[in-house]
Amino acid sequence: MADDSPISAPGAIRAVTSLNNTTIKEIRALALPKYRKESGLFVTEGMKLVADAVEEDWPIRILAYGAKVANHPIVRRVATRTHARGGEVLEVTDAVLAKMTRRDNPQMVVGVFEQRLMPPSAIRPSPRGVWVALEGIKDPGNLGTIIRTVDASGAEGVILVGDTVDPFGVEAVRATMGSIFHVPLARMTTGEFAAWRKTWPGIVVGTHLSGTEDFRDVDYAKPVLLLMGNEQSGLDDGFAALCDHLVKIPQAGRADSLNLAIATGVMLFEIRRNELKLT
Amino acid sequence: MADDSPISAPGAIRAVTSLNNTTIKEIRALALPKYRKESGLFVTEGMKLVADAVEEDWPIRILAYGAKVANHPIVRRVATRTHARGGEVLEVTDAVLAKMTRRDNPQMVVGVFEQRLMPPSAIRPSPRGVWVALEGIKDPGNLGTIIRTVDASGAEGVILVGDTVDPFGVEAVRATMGSIFHVPLARMTTGEFAAWRKTWPGIVVGTHLSGTEDFRDVDYAKPVLLLMGNEQSGLDDGFAALCDHLVKIPQAGRADSLNLAIATGVMLFEIRRNELKLT
Repeated sequence: MADDSPISAPGAIRAVTSLNNTTIKEIRALALPKYRKESGLFVTEGMKLVADAVEEDWPIRILAYGAKVANHPIVRRVATRTHARGGEVLEVTDAVLAKMTRRDNPQMVVGVFEQRLMPPSAIRPSPRGVWVALEGIKDPGNLGTIIRTVDASGAEGVILVGDTVDPFGVEAVRATMGSIFHVPLARMTTGEFAAWRKTWPGIVVGTHLSGTEDFRDVDYAKPVLLLMGNEQSGLDDGFAALCDHLVKIPQAGRADSLNLAIATGVMLFEIRRNELKLT
Repeated sequence: MADDSPISAPGAIRAVTSLNNTTIKEIRALALPKYRKESGLFVTEGMKLVADAVEEDWPIRILAYGAKVANHPIVRRVATRTHARGGEVLEVTDAVLAKMTRRDNPQMVVGVFEQRLMPPSAIRPSPRGVWVALEGIKDPGNLGTIIRTVDASGAEGVILVGDTVDPFGVEAVRATMGSIFHVPLARMTTGEFAAWRKTWPGIVVGTHLSGTEDFRDVDYAKPVLLLMGNEQSGLDDGFAALCDHLVKIPQAGRADSLNLAIATGVMLFEIRRNELKLT
């Protein structure tokens, strides 16, 4: 275990104390969209989330952990599996953790994983399967919360359309609370989506301010593609035209006052109403 | 209009360019819980939100706006009403706006308002009225989103119990999107809440991991007090004991994977299901 040695034997744990270590700088750079795009990698923080992802065989490239948790059994197990997958394992100081995560009180375990997106052609909903398509979503916290809610409601995946924010950004990943590793994601341009939509075997439902159908009045007993639009402007007209149903969630008081993630959650629990049962 | 003059005539607009102006420092300090508590004031950003609050006669103490919007008709109207209420009006530079809001791209209009909490004795639900009690909520974004959802669902108010985060913090206020001015709020200690709960004329419903009742199976045709617990630990046992119904939202996959604000939203739209209709 040479400190900051540029080369380490396979299976070795490198101890890193230098804030200028190249790998640490690369991890830190993954906070920026440009580097995530170039590398195809993303960062997840937290012992439980990293361990869960590794358990499910999500491809891990780098495991970094604070020296004070070096002997934690979960950390030992994750380190072994990271090496087994050909990944790198770094034992670091608190200062290095803070630097790489840009946080004052960093989590003790950080994982760098490969991003995974599903090709649109591989999307095949089950007979009552629900997919959510998000157009122009700007807020990473909203996106992460929606991915988490898709997971909780038993919907099958999320399609990121157009310039929807990156789901692999730190804030989005945090908000998913681990669901980033469970929910299949696909990305399409607006044009690709319009073409792909024609292959959808069920109904396409959008929430829209000018919707006249109550969201509880649609028969959801078939594959449902739920379309949700941007936080400020809602579903744009081109997308509304792709829908079989334009629905509205009745609201008290001021119009359109639901947060996007809440509206998506209320929709998903309604669409899945007959599927969701206490076990 | 003397620049940074310590004394200004009633009804005068003060132009402020100095980052060290005392009023500016006081506004900036309202980002800190201590100063909010001492002063009983809070900050709202954004022309529309400030204007809406003033229209509804929420007591405004200070209006600050960027010089470039000085002639905007809404700003002019809000300034007149602020003076009419004895408040102070400041025309400031972009640098001053950035300083007072701690933001790189500040909103052009900032209002300082009096905090308002309802005394617990004044809480009187309507025959099918819903109140939400939040115990130990830590995340201001969650709290703000819940207040916004209470507004959208037509529930009647929110009770902040125990060490629930301050609803008048900047992040919470932002997440309410103006609902902070519409939704009655009360605050109680855990002990006060336990005593007050006995006066509740309807049912008390809590969501709980060990709940065995499906949240859709309760008869909500009476005043409902919905109890929601902390993001990580959920409703604690003492609070669960105060409930008439401990319910669960059925979830697919991993247990308890719903975000708190989403769970509250799904509950509220279920409780209010028969009241919410498209108009």
